[in-house]
Amino acid sequence: MAGRRQEEYRFGRILAISDGVFAFSLTLLVVDLVIPTSSSNSALASQLVAQLPALLSYLISFAVVALTWNSHRETFGYIRHADGWLIVFNFALLLLVAFLPFPTAVLGRNQNEPLAAVIYAVTLTLINLAAAAIWWYATRGHRLVDRDLDHHVVKKRFSRLAIGVAVFLVSIPVALWQPYVAEIMWLPLFGVVLFIRTPS
Amino acid sequence: MAGRRQEEYRFGRILAISDGVFAFSLTLLVVDLVIPTSSSNSALASQLVAQLPALLSYLISFAVVALTWNSHRETFGYIRHADGWLIVFNFALLLLVAFLPFPTAVLGRNQNEPLAAVIYAVTLTLINLAAAAIWWYATRGHRLVDRDLDHHVVKKRFSRLAIGVAVFLVSIPVALWQPYVAEIMWLPLFGVVLFIRTPS
Amino acid sequence: MAGRRQEEYRFGRILAISDGVFAFSLTLLVVDLVIPTSSSNSALASQLVAQLPALLSYLISFAVVALTWNSHRETFGYIRHADGWLIVFNFALLLLVAFLPFPTAVLGRNQNEPLAAVIYAVTLTLINLAAAAIWWYATRGHRLVDRDLDHHVVKKRFSRLAIGVAVFLVSIPVALWQPYVAEIMWLPLFGVVLFIRTPS
Amino acid sequence: MAGRRQEEYRFGRILAISDGVFAFSLTLLVVDLVIPTSSSNSALASQLVAQLPALLSYLISFAVVALTWNSHRETFGYIRHADGWLIVFNFALLLLVAFLPFPTAVLGRNQNEPLAAVIYAVTLTLINLAAAAIWWYATRGHRLVDRDLDHHVVKKRFSRLAIGVAVFLVSIPVALWQPYVAEIMWLPLFGVVLFIRTPS
Repeated sequence: MAGRRQEEYRFGRILAISDGVFAFSLTLLVVDLVIPTSSSNSALASQLVAQLPALLSYLISFAVVALTWNSHRETFGYIRHADGWLIVFNFALLLLVAFLPFPTAVLGRNQNEPLAAVIYAVTLTLINLAAAAIWWYATRGHRLVDRDLDHHVVKKRFSRLAIGVAVFLVSIPVALWQPYVAEIMWLPLFGVVLFIRTPS
Repeated sequence: MAGRRQEEYRFGRILAISDGVFAFSLTLLVVDLVIPTSSSNSALASQLVAQLPALLSYLISFAVVALTWNSHRETFGYIRHADGWLIVFNFALLLLVAFLPFPTAVLGRNQNEPLAAVIYAVTLTLINLAAAAIWWYATRGHRLVDRDLDHHVVKKRFSRLAIGVAVFLVSIPVALWQPYVAEIMWLPLFGVVLFIRTPS
Repeated sequence: MAGRRQEEYRFGRILAISDGVFAFSLTLLVVDLVIPTSSSNSALASQLVAQLPALLSYLISFAVVALTWNSHRETFGYIRHADGWLIVFNFALLLLVAFLPFPTAVLGRNQNEPLAAVIYAVTLTLINLAAAAIWWYATRGHRLVDRDLDHHVVKKRFSRLAIGVAVFLVSIPVALWQPYVAEIMWLPLFGVVLFIRTPS
Repeated sequence: MAGRRQEEYRFGRILAISDGVFAFSLTLLVVDLVIPTSSSNSALASQLVAQLPALLSYLISFAVVALTWNSHRETFGYIRHADGWLIVFNFALLLLVAFLPFPTAVLGRNQNEPLAAVIYAVTLTLINLAAAAIWWYATRGHRLVDRDLDHHVVKKRFSRLAIGVAVFLVSIPVALWQPYVAEIMWLPLFGVVLFIRTPS
């Protein structure tokens, strides 16, 4: 009884700190958009148009954090126990999510630089890697999940997470070669990710 | 039993991420106010007076986020199940709420530009549209609400949400024509919205 | 039963948005401190010393938000029902708490200007007024509290909240006359507030 | 019964405000990284390389907040009652955690200045001191913990917290003498802290 209450407490705290970081990261992204101040309507318009690339990377990052949150929610929906390593892996994911506003802003202000796109692609790859690592660690030998959790579910979910890693890994050389192509590639990709995901 | 716990977990996470984004957005709005530094009392006073338009758009945005939160609270008070599309619609609303500090700051620093007021009015319209879309999606065929939820309640609430969309839609051309009129129009409007809303 | 679940849901959401705003406001205050960059150790030291007034107003504001949160926690510990007006009063308090980083930064950068101290003192007065208003509204005719809540408790708590309002109201003319005196007055005052407060 | 509900409410609020401050502090650290804007790929690269020291102090601070959160979670897992002084001690810890982005940014931009490293080391020492003080206050005479909590557990945990204080205290003179050595000393130290901590 006491053990179960402890388990619930620990679990609740991990979710609270995670949702806090996700929510803050979602909201903080907007800070990097530069507020234009101008003397005429047309000057304001051209300044806002100049912000469009930054707006695009803002949207991509928002989608990334939202999808990562959703994946985190699904993973932790299967987890029944929490141990020290789960907390370490979880903080690795949160570190990358909290860090994302930086590469987003770098990309938003340096759209033509392959380096900016590469740094961004690497960050997205690492986020997906951390999400996959949590699932791998939790399900390995049914370490933190229910004993009767179907092997099929474990594998299916793992391969989906692995596809996420693979796709962003592939986008790294694309970003090096053509930053714009990589960016345009990412957006529809989220549509696909959303579609292949069974609602759970 | 397990299904219900899963349902509660999923619901709890959605509310946690939503309240987080609402709370940060409410607090982040203040960041766009420029801190004056001055050498005399009268210089400080004139700099603060110059901030008054920015303060007005700050107040309007705070009211918008507060009312949107309240509407979100009411809607989710009726929702019993959560599916993948609800999460997508919810993130669309959160994206707009998290984005609001940007058009608020643009309006605050460019009060005389119709374009700034139009962008602001469009954002408010989209926020209301997203809130109405969630209600429409959740109640359509009693998809996510209790089966015995009165049709009258569904319709009444939907028409109120639709009025919100209509009013902000109308304010778009007004903003184009007279930015100040649109702004002055919004504030009392919140009073009305507050008044017609039955406390629940 | 359903009614009680609704009550718990509504209450939970109000606390979630409130704690979010309090926590964010506590953390956001630090953003207004200017990060010095210097070429020598002594230059850095003198720049940090120049920041001391800003640090003082940072500490005062942190204490104000912490004490307001504590008062909010106590008040809502007595509240059993939540209605539309409670939400409105609560948002008035949250608006002032979320706004506090602005007068804090204005004071931090304009320590010698009476106007800056007056704006700060007015904000503190309004925060205390909003906190007192919530208690008054909730307990008036036992509107939102338990019927058997002792009249003595209601009155005692109300007079303490009223003292808070009175003290900050008095500090407004002091701030106009001697900004430094008002500031130095506030810090020990928090000690007193802390002391007269029975731990609950 | 009512008393227990009150106890749970009070405890829940303290955890909510704490997790909020921890989560914001984790995410806010990224704001201090300067977003480079450049005209060529190599210029961007050199600007990013110039950011590496700031990135290092970002990582250290993230690790500090994460470890402090973990220690807070462990401590509050043992606490059964909450009183006024616990709230005061807890706010002292939260003040230091919320303040951390400031010394982090000062260090990030003034890596060669012993003063910057000393201020940072002092802040880390105080954070560890506050965490130890909470444990000491809560367990002293079993004030806020279960009566049957083993003395062994109390002492073991206290000595671990005391070691944390001692290590950062020692790093103050090191920082004064060789800022870089202190920084390089801190990172592996977190590995050790992580390792000696039994997962609970």
